Amino acid sequence: MKTLGIEHIEKVEKGTILSAKGFKAGGIHAGLRYAKKDFGMIYSEKPASCGAVYTQSHFQAPPLKVTQDSISQQQMLQAIVVNSAVANACTGEQGLKDAYTTRHLIADRFQIPEEFIAVASTGVIGEWLPMDKIEKGCSEVMVESNEDSAQSFQQAILTTDTVEKSACYQLEIEGEIITIGGAAKGSGMIHPNMATMLGFITTDATIASEKLQVALSEAINQSFNQITVDGETSTNDMVLVMANGMVEHKTLDEKHPDWKTFKKGLQLVCEDLAKQIARDGEGATKLVEVEVVDAYTDDEARVIAKKVVGSDLVKTAVYGADANWGRIIGAIGHSDATVNPETCDIYIGETLVFHQGTPQAFSEDIVSSYMKGEKVEIKIALHIGTGVGKAWGCDLTYDYVKINASYRT
Amino acid sequence: MKTLGIEHIEKVEKGTILSAKGFKAGGIHAGLRYAKKDFGMIYSEKPASCGAVYTQSHFQAPPLKVTQDSISQQQMLQAIVVNSAVANACTGEQGLKDAYTTRHLIADRFQIPEEFIAVASTGVIGEWLPMDKIEKGCSEVMVESNEDSAQSFQQAILTTDTVEKSACYQLEIEGEIITIGGAAKGSGMIHPNMATMLGFITTDATIASEKLQVALSEAINQSFNQITVDGETSTNDMVLVMANGMVEHKTLDEKHPDWKTFKKGLQLVCEDLAKQIARDGEGATKLVEVEVVDAYTDDEARVIAKKVVGSDLVKTAVYGADANWGRIIGAIGHSDATVNPETCDIYIGETLVFHQGTPQAFSEDIVSSYMKGEKVEIKIALHIGTGVGKAWGCDLTYDYVKINASYRT
Repeated sequence: MKTLGIEHIEKVEKGTILSAKGFKAGGIHAGLRYAKKDFGMIYSEKPASCGAVYTQSHFQAPPLKVTQDSISQQQMLQAIVVNSAVANACTGEQGLKDAYTTRHLIADRFQIPEEFIAVASTGVIGEWLPMDKIEKGCSEVMVESNEDSAQSFQQAILTTDTVEKSACYQLEIEGEIITIGGAAKGSGMIHPNMATMLGFITTDATIASEKLQVALSEAINQSFNQITVDGETSTNDMVLVMANGMVEHKTLDEKHPDWKTFKKGLQLVCEDLAKQIARDGEGATKLVEVEVVDAYTDDEARVIAKKVVGSDLVKTAVYGADANWGRIIGAIGHSDATVNPETCDIYIGETLVFHQGTPQAFSEDIVSSYMKGEKVEIKIALHIGTGVGKAWGCDLTYDYVKINASYRT
Repeated sequence: MKTLGIEHIEKVEKGTILSAKGFKAGGIHAGLRYAKKDFGMIYSEKPASCGAVYTQSHFQAPPLKVTQDSISQQQMLQAIVVNSAVANACTGEQGLKDAYTTRHLIADRFQIPEEFIAVASTGVIGEWLPMDKIEKGCSEVMVESNEDSAQSFQQAILTTDTVEKSACYQLEIEGEIITIGGAAKGSGMIHPNMATMLGFITTDATIASEKLQVALSEAINQSFNQITVDGETSTNDMVLVMANGMVEHKTLDEKHPDWKTFKKGLQLVCEDLAKQIARDGEGATKLVEVEVVDAYTDDEARVIAKKVVGSDLVKTAVYGADANWGRIIGAIGHSDATVNPETCDIYIGETLVFHQGTPQAFSEDIVSSYMKGEKVEIKIALHIGTGVGKAWGCDLTYDYVKINASYRT
């Protein structure tokens, strides 16, 4: 048996949603997009426990409502069907009917109960699904277990993303190796009109839906909920996880000795995907990571980190490689969290630029040169507690404006 | 006597902070900026009632602390001294000492009590005031009552603003005409590092500070607090009002028959200045006004209006004259306010683009052509209550990125 690291968690290079046992996937061109793949599916050999997190938007799109309806019945999923190009959002009664039809067609063809099927869409808001093409997708999509089919799925869910996004980690539970893999899409939190951040996670661990939901919600608070490209929330955002129990071990719950390890593994997959989304933000040239330590609570640390990483002024300064810590102060300053200016330290990379309420002398050249790299880390130490948190985003560039000023035309 | 309109309120074209009786002002080049005016002062012949609203930032700059100290003593002001170029923010003990020194020098020269003097600064965060230049400003600034000196003051408070900002309204109280005039600066809520939105309002009305504060706070909630250029809050934001009672009438309070008229006049001055700031947002090419009606409450209407006007995706769509209402949905959707997607209508200009949860057919050409104008109005009717609110902002352009990616270098 393969031996895992100290924490019993190891990243699997090139791992995917098919790395865990018992999953199949596929993606095809059904005609919603001009030439690219636009219709995908994940399938589990056995009905799987599941967890789901949905957008907080008031305008929740029909596919999310259908998915909620499915999960509410037996808390199990066996398939997830996804289309790109059209979000089926803000489409009224007809949109809901279309999402149910999609679910029905897949249930019929794969001979699985309708309530075991989740539906997801991403694309333009306010247009109805072209149902002839959706029908084509439902009748032609193939699911297989080879890595090509994982890649086809990854491609089928993209909109203006420039790269596919996947992540995979393995960990030991009772001496058995279990795998958690994921795929995601997203490049603006709302993509122009091309809505959405979507995340799909598969694992062969044995766990009930109720506990899986707990683990997913925790993981998401420290990952997908901590990225921002433009501060927008889409109508279609959704993260789904399926656990099919193909690796047999005592069912995971809070009392299981490996519960924390499993949660950590799930969080690492989510964090890895979330960072890939942030890095692929519209027009972005680099990943920005903000870490807040010694905050009053973890929640407050996360709030501040997200505020800083989401500030247009910080984002433009990063783009310009300008060590403009006044903008970081500005962003920290207007959060609702507890802050004492007299005890606040700010680092850009390794350089202390602001210490306990007072500007520090530092080499602008060294910091500017650091900020020209692929990843910029900002660290804020508040010295008022033990709370920690991170958030990820990207720089704000001419290309962001270009992409979004002329998206539909 | 001049006759005012039906509402007894009338805009005074070219009116300024010197239109009300008994005020003087001035502005000079003291050497903080390369060539432009950078040091200004407003002076009232008589000690004036006052009101003040300060930034919500945790990092409140020393000049704001000194102003609070002044006002706390007798709730009266006779002079406001302002410098641009250096914000004196995040400057620790020394910064506080420098702000007190400024107040002391003005008190000494103009022979007024220190506690009658407010201090304001705007400019780069994290640098100490060059006190030799501040001393020069304090000893050389002249205050006069002609319109040239109002203009000098307006110029002295600017940083990266491209235009001076002033507004003036008159109204009748007990048959007497009273005047409310204002000056402001601001072009990013935090300007790069050039912090700040500042507003200064003068009136010859007779009113106690306590009531003036009430009226100011209300006015600001519907004006300065409803504009956003980039969602940032500066360390130095401040709005001050002085009422010197040079027009004699029964002291204004809630029971005075003209109380609402006075409040409305103050609000119009604030709204007028606020819109000028929004229109002069960094890199902006147009003013955007979002009006929300039929919301659950006025507060919620204002929250939604501000969310929409602050959305980067809405701002870039406006820049590109793209009738992309999906982005408006996105912004409404992720506010905390009460929203029912089934009853929501959205107008761009006069065109209904979304009606009760369903997309509407409309001419993209007509709407796009409308959006190419100088002012873009978006109206959202929620149909769930009687709350109304407005917010103002600007488009997000290449120039915003340019200005902010390279501000200090």
